[in-house]
Amino acid sequence: MASFTSSIYILTEKDVNKYIIGIDIGGTAVKLGLFDGDGKLAEKWQVPTRLGQQGRFVLPHIAAEAEERLRKKKLSWSDVHGIGIGVPGPVLDGRIVPLAVNLGWKEKDVAAEMRQLTGVSRIAAENDAKAAALGEYWKGGWENYTSAVMITIGTAVGGAVILNGRIVPGAFGAAGELSHIRVKPDETEPCACGKCGHLQQYVSAEGILRSYRNKVSGFESAQLKTVKDIFDAAKRGQEPALSTVKDTVRMLAAAMSAVSCVIDPELFIIGGGISNAGDFLLDLVRSEFKMQALPTAEKVRIEAAKTGNDAGIYGAYQCIAKICSN
Amino acid sequence: MASFTSSIYILTEKDVNKYIIGIDIGGTAVKLGLFDGDGKLAEKWQVPTRLGQQGRFVLPHIAAEAEERLRKKKLSWSDVHGIGIGVPGPVLDGRIVPLAVNLGWKEKDVAAEMRQLTGVSRIAAENDAKAAALGEYWKGGWENYTSAVMITIGTAVGGAVILNGRIVPGAFGAAGELSHIRVKPDETEPCACGKCGHLQQYVSAEGILRSYRNKVSGFESAQLKTVKDIFDAAKRGQEPALSTVKDTVRMLAAAMSAVSCVIDPELFIIGGGISNAGDFLLDLVRSEFKMQALPTAEKVRIEAAKTGNDAGIYGAYQCIAKICSN
Repeated sequence: MASFTSSIYILTEKDVNKYIIGIDIGGTAVKLGLFDGDGKLAEKWQVPTRLGQQGRFVLPHIAAEAEERLRKKKLSWSDVHGIGIGVPGPVLDGRIVPLAVNLGWKEKDVAAEMRQLTGVSRIAAENDAKAAALGEYWKGGWENYTSAVMITIGTAVGGAVILNGRIVPGAFGAAGELSHIRVKPDETEPCACGKCGHLQQYVSAEGILRSYRNKVSGFESAQLKTVKDIFDAAKRGQEPALSTVKDTVRMLAAAMSAVSCVIDPELFIIGGGISNAGDFLLDLVRSEFKMQALPTAEKVRIEAAKTGNDAGIYGAYQCIAKICSN
Repeated sequence: MASFTSSIYILTEKDVNKYIIGIDIGGTAVKLGLFDGDGKLAEKWQVPTRLGQQGRFVLPHIAAEAEERLRKKKLSWSDVHGIGIGVPGPVLDGRIVPLAVNLGWKEKDVAAEMRQLTGVSRIAAENDAKAAALGEYWKGGWENYTSAVMITIGTAVGGAVILNGRIVPGAFGAAGELSHIRVKPDETEPCACGKCGHLQQYVSAEGILRSYRNKVSGFESAQLKTVKDIFDAAKRGQEPALSTVKDTVRMLAAAMSAVSCVIDPELFIIGGGISNAGDFLLDLVRSEFKMQALPTAEKVRIEAAKTGNDAGIYGAYQCIAKICSN
């Protein structure tokens, strides 16, 4: 009877006029979204991340800025039904961050602190890459896929696994850490994690530039400076840009094949800066993936992310909206 | 209200005096288990797999043998609440087998055929490796782990991923196909699937023997003939048996590290013939896994399977018991 009673309680208490706030904390800026009772983004804004002193001001600053914005709209924290927070680090049990290097945090109970700052009882925290994947899954129109894996490629490589509409957290918060799949066992240069031959070393922005620089010495053309330049040159068939891109794609497809052997997703979504390369990149990835993966995995769809920079706040909304509606 | 009504219906209909049959179909023998209403194995027996003619007699033969056994116990199909069936091939939607090479089957609706043969309406089919993993998870006493990955190493390599007590099927029935994780990108010899450098090529019984034979030419000792002999010699520190085992473990740990990056399980269970090597093998795997995996994954437990040959019928029981109790 307990769960039945609890359902009635929530149905009675739930107020469709209440708002939900989605927060995406980055190393330099914090994005915030105010969502209405129907899940519509009513307003979004951005504030700088208040770093320093082991990041102790990050959450108070966000709470103060959000409160100010609520006041301007003649609202207060009592009009807020729940708060979802994306954090650049692992998150356990929807609340504990054991470590967030970019923010200077050691173990922090994000939910408890935010609850104390705002008086809002329903708080859910999630890793930022996982939140962004959930946001993309929802706003990108992928919800009819029962399983999806998102790979976000930018300065770093992030990942997330979605099964039946929910992020797989992992026993130790590390599910979807695709950046550390080993794709080159004989590598001697270390990854940021200290071990060698990991996906991130080859397909992150820095990895692509390094791969290009390793090849360019034999060519007379002026050296390209950005990943975008490398992809543009590759589209024109220019070497060594094209072989750089092909090497990148080979490593990416190797990791994707391993992912398919483990959970056999219906869909891969490729996000982050690299997805701007569009069909040129996607076609190469699709073709290389078919070469490497099991025949069953040939049916998998490989698509580019659609939601862009707002995926994080949409995902943070989703993390808490699911709790509020249960 | 629909689900509430449906719960009452099932509670009323469920008869604790009814039995469930768990069936594990192998390429040479079929194992059967008769479970009572409390999930206790009342009886188990084995019949030969009736191959030939595209395997069209496999299921009729099993049904006839089971009916005979029921009759001897003064029971009939009307005393059977459900039938779970493990099949050596992929299984979609709990009933369709697109292909089972060892049985000669092309697309077959196992549930429909078994329903027609027995009159029992509740039938669930599952891939045999996945069913065995579910059986091990249940009978091996691992149910307090919310996530587990089983790797079965024998003639071939099988795998299964369990999240929240359920097998992850995969969008195309291929989740847990760990045997085809690529662990040696520069391999030129092909795996049985036609692609190169897959786990199965190094850690299956045949793979271990091949690895040993490749090393043995430089040694004077008599050539060992079985995997057991190789492990026994390795325990005594004898070369090249020891380096063969270490190479095997290195490949296994590489695949396990990739698995951890994808779903970060709480537990790995190693089953199949190789698990007879006991702590000698487990300690090597634990140590090598720590070398290769992310620091978060160091908390993962790595254990040997406990249930042995009956895991398949226990798992087949679990597949259908979950349906019957919902």
